[in-house]
Amino acid sequence: MPHNNYLYQTRDIKFQIKEWLDINKILSLDAYKDYYGADDFDAICDVNFKICRDVICPANKESDEIGMKHVGGNEKAVISPDVFKTVYNTVIEAGMGPQFGDRQVEGRMPLYWYAPILEMQTGASPAMVMLWCLTQGATTVLQYNLSKELQERFLPKMYSGEWGGSMCLTEPGAGSEVGAVSTKCFPTDTPGLWKVKGQKCFITTGDWDGVDNIIHLVLAKDPDAKPGTAGISCLVVPKFWVNEDGSMGAWNDVTTTGIEHKLGIHGSATCSLAFGENDNCYGWMIGDGPVDGRGQGMAQMFQMMNEERINTGIFSLGAFGAAYYAALEYSKARVQSKKSTDPKGPSVRIIEHEDVRRMLLLQKSVMEACRALLYSSYYYIDMSKEAATEEEREYAEDMFMIQNPLCKAYVSDMAWVMCAEAIQVHGGYGFMEEYAPASLARDCKIYTLWEGTNFIQSQDFTGRKFTMKKGEPFKKWLAEIGDFIANKKTPEFAAEFAMMEKAFAAFNSIIDMNAAWTTTNKQLKQLFATRIMHAAARVICGKLMLDQGLLAAGKLAELGDSHFDANFYKGKLASVKFYVMNVVPEIFGTEEAMKAADTSAIDCPEEAIM
Amino acid sequence: MPHNNYLYQTRDIKFQIKEWLDINKILSLDAYKDYYGADDFDAICDVNFKICRDVICPANKESDEIGMKHVGGNEKAVISPDVFKTVYNTVIEAGMGPQFGDRQVEGRMPLYWYAPILEMQTGASPAMVMLWCLTQGATTVLQYNLSKELQERFLPKMYSGEWGGSMCLTEPGAGSEVGAVSTKCFPTDTPGLWKVKGQKCFITTGDWDGVDNIIHLVLAKDPDAKPGTAGISCLVVPKFWVNEDGSMGAWNDVTTTGIEHKLGIHGSATCSLAFGENDNCYGWMIGDGPVDGRGQGMAQMFQMMNEERINTGIFSLGAFGAAYYAALEYSKARVQSKKSTDPKGPSVRIIEHEDVRRMLLLQKSVMEACRALLYSSYYYIDMSKEAATEEEREYAEDMFMIQNPLCKAYVSDMAWVMCAEAIQVHGGYGFMEEYAPASLARDCKIYTLWEGTNFIQSQDFTGRKFTMKKGEPFKKWLAEIGDFIANKKTPEFAAEFAMMEKAFAAFNSIIDMNAAWTTTNKQLKQLFATRIMHAAARVICGKLMLDQGLLAAGKLAELGDSHFDANFYKGKLASVKFYVMNVVPEIFGTEEAMKAADTSAIDCPEEAIM
Repeated sequence: MPHNNYLYQTRDIKFQIKEWLDINKILSLDAYKDYYGADDFDAICDVNFKICRDVICPANKESDEIGMKHVGGNEKAVISPDVFKTVYNTVIEAGMGPQFGDRQVEGRMPLYWYAPILEMQTGASPAMVMLWCLTQGATTVLQYNLSKELQERFLPKMYSGEWGGSMCLTEPGAGSEVGAVSTKCFPTDTPGLWKVKGQKCFITTGDWDGVDNIIHLVLAKDPDAKPGTAGISCLVVPKFWVNEDGSMGAWNDVTTTGIEHKLGIHGSATCSLAFGENDNCYGWMIGDGPVDGRGQGMAQMFQMMNEERINTGIFSLGAFGAAYYAALEYSKARVQSKKSTDPKGPSVRIIEHEDVRRMLLLQKSVMEACRALLYSSYYYIDMSKEAATEEEREYAEDMFMIQNPLCKAYVSDMAWVMCAEAIQVHGGYGFMEEYAPASLARDCKIYTLWEGTNFIQSQDFTGRKFTMKKGEPFKKWLAEIGDFIANKKTPEFAAEFAMMEKAFAAFNSIIDMNAAWTTTNKQLKQLFATRIMHAAARVICGKLMLDQGLLAAGKLAELGDSHFDANFYKGKLASVKFYVMNVVPEIFGTEEAMKAADTSAIDCPEEAIM
Repeated sequence: MPHNNYLYQTRDIKFQIKEWLDINKILSLDAYKDYYGADDFDAICDVNFKICRDVICPANKESDEIGMKHVGGNEKAVISPDVFKTVYNTVIEAGMGPQFGDRQVEGRMPLYWYAPILEMQTGASPAMVMLWCLTQGATTVLQYNLSKELQERFLPKMYSGEWGGSMCLTEPGAGSEVGAVSTKCFPTDTPGLWKVKGQKCFITTGDWDGVDNIIHLVLAKDPDAKPGTAGISCLVVPKFWVNEDGSMGAWNDVTTTGIEHKLGIHGSATCSLAFGENDNCYGWMIGDGPVDGRGQGMAQMFQMMNEERINTGIFSLGAFGAAYYAALEYSKARVQSKKSTDPKGPSVRIIEHEDVRRMLLLQKSVMEACRALLYSSYYYIDMSKEAATEEEREYAEDMFMIQNPLCKAYVSDMAWVMCAEAIQVHGGYGFMEEYAPASLARDCKIYTLWEGTNFIQSQDFTGRKFTMKKGEPFKKWLAEIGDFIANKKTPEFAAEFAMMEKAFAAFNSIIDMNAAWTTTNKQLKQLFATRIMHAAARVICGKLMLDQGLLAAGKLAELGDSHFDANFYKGKLASVKFYVMNVVPEIFGTEEAMKAADTSAIDCPEEAIM
């Protein structure tokens, strides 16, 4: 019996969304000001929580143990457990699904509220959340790039959840190297309409029986395409044809040839799809007109991909967050061994043991730090779309672009490590599938791999993001961290600010070494990209946590020790201190290794690696 | 389809056993000198390799996918796939199973040769190796503690594999806290014979249908037992009674009440056992006479436990080693993306990319470092039993005792991280069960938990092992590392020795802080025990790797660049440098965190952890 008991907590979520991030600023924007007050978030959060607890999470058992079955055929080739339809419909009816993809509708929720919703849903079932969130992603591409007429055909039923959506990039021979796609599209007599032929694999929710149709976004190359990614176009290829009036037509020659047998997220169908096996598959090229979309596929797909990357961070957080809450609950119930300070006394609950405390605070603080990184980045997305001035939008977009690879890669790397900590708190029971962390550990491993492996993120961060717009945004991002550390210190956090100062100096030395290697040894940049990404994440998370710490200290002083909410703030102070003093220092190991600049991994002849 | 294609390599195994460790010294001991030459190891290693490749590993698919089934009843309550019997019998017939438990038989193999044999077997199937290795462990307890007459009854059929053996410590309420066992034993009219009653859980290979009988070693307390571990006795409790002539008698009221549904090692039955549900279960107390064994259970069980701890390190190495070899093979075949140094060139095999090289060298170097730690520790066990003088035996025993918690905890912690690296090398395919690392990652998680959790190891290391015999052995161990670093440096490894000097200074500062906390804040010792254990492992592994590097550099100079074996030594030099310059430096993060001495995890009120 895998994870199916929802223990997620919302107090820190509400703190970060409402108290820490400037909710009033967002709610004063034109898009939101007539519709929402800050307290509306509580209601939405609580509804989502109840759906997670009462509907999604209990079904996670069947999601993991039964999962998706491939039965073949064109109609319903992938069968889900019956309970999936109930879960799916409940989420859709509550407005917690693909509706978030509609970025133009009047009365839409602030976008950054989607972060906790998705996080909590993933914490309920990492697999089932894939039933609706890819649809949401696909709609973001369509609404910004498709003609109004075609939007009308596809989007309403995607927002309503009647139809699903997918992103079809990967092929057996084209994973990290997207430019190598071999799927082809051929022009037809109808402008904008193309014939599609090719194989795709690893397509999440590429098919399932809970929706009537799936609208695939397919990367393909036309016969005259340029080589590499510059030649890629993106097509909308529905499984069943969609008529002009929006009604469903005949099967569009999209075949689900199989689904994968995976380490985790068994309840999510990872499909292999064949387009045009009978030479009868058609799709609309995405773009402004019949020709303009050619070669624009990567840029279009990245509108979805960028959000799927931060969403992957959110999934990672939800998965290891759920594991943490399970560990916390277990640690309060399990009695085992004497206290180190009272070895002759009675056996105590394991939460009283120092090493269990260490594991809990490690998980708690990393969870809150990752949440801070993710929510603040989602806030930047929101501002990049809705802020009043172009300057504000551009700044927010830049900051999001810099932080996004950290959101994806650092948080997903942490998920694997933190799930292991949650298992460890459970002792031998942690290895048993009856306890939540085992299945969550299996589930979370996908996040380091999809939407661009974590090395691709690290390369993007240390390459493109360091240098975009002549490096000005990155300099600004770095300066903001430095200014914070230099100017915000208080006596309560004197030791923590001192640690951050030292860590920031180490990070600057890391940045300098990386920059120097651009001329002296580019391969060293590649060798250290992953570690630089981790170092950066620790520094920015340290800053964000300290910022929360300052706020929490103030609130605690204001409320007093005996206030019912005082414990939350005390816990926050502990997380802040723990993160800065125990997690951030790992940067010093990276700095030393970078100074050593060892190239043995690339100097070694291939035949000597055995 | 989980891991079932054996790609393990033996070159480094042979290097470490024959070239690095002093094989001639071992083979000149009385126990071995008339029987073995150094080259015999090659033959034994190769036979074991073939069994692993041709018999064990192919069956790992059924081990993982079908696994063990609990059907109930007294006779054959746990059913294995048919192929298990073939695997088991092949291993036994080749002498690669419980025969190693016989430490007195003439012509026995050097004990430290068992390390690679077990490692390679685990690399073939982490689950199936449990079919025979617990029996071997149980026999070590029996042969040193049981009366000759009882040894005659049980041991021959355990060595021959007709009967299995198990260690029954854990109960639902007594895991890490062994002293809390509630299983009882009651005296009978027959001296030495006791009635047994109680429940045990998490008993590895506590039952299966490939053996006729299982000889359980059961921890229990008699009615007058002292509290805690001091009151624990150990009893031999066969599933079926064993008559004086060694023949099997009636069922001894040992019931397998269930097996666990686990994250991994599905082919290993983790049993719940009920002893004496019908008041008809009997066992012999282990000890010199009817009374002497009372309260000696922990000491006796630790003769097995100490070896099972190092064996757990060996299992961990075998599991992540197999994942590494799978990643290496994949990296040589998979073509994806251009070289960073030739971005307009052709797509290349991923082993040509720097970050893949980093991941491969990380796995390779950690594998070889762990192997060095484990084999050298096994060598100490061998010397502790067979060396000519009491002084040598005592020294070897001390060194083994110091290193053993590192063998268990460091290597098992590394297994989880290294399996993730192997998955990452595979990209999206790594998440698919068709590729080896997925199932190996699931399998390896047990190793951080059983035989004493990794915190128990860390506590043992920083507590008991630092101070045993007034701290003299630990001082000696530390001095040997310091002497090596100070006196062995060569120009080729100048940078690596400099890094080790710095790391050793950091480790000494860590040791000093830990010692100071003994009087100032004992709880800090607990909070940092796990990290100190890791720091120590990195320092000793750095030393051992550099020692191998010096040897390899000499061999390479001797053989010349074009010798067929030169690549192995070049690869060794790369591993040594990579480990020292990239893995060892993590100690500096630990040192900084210890200096910060943050106590937020224990200062935080329990209610504030939410």
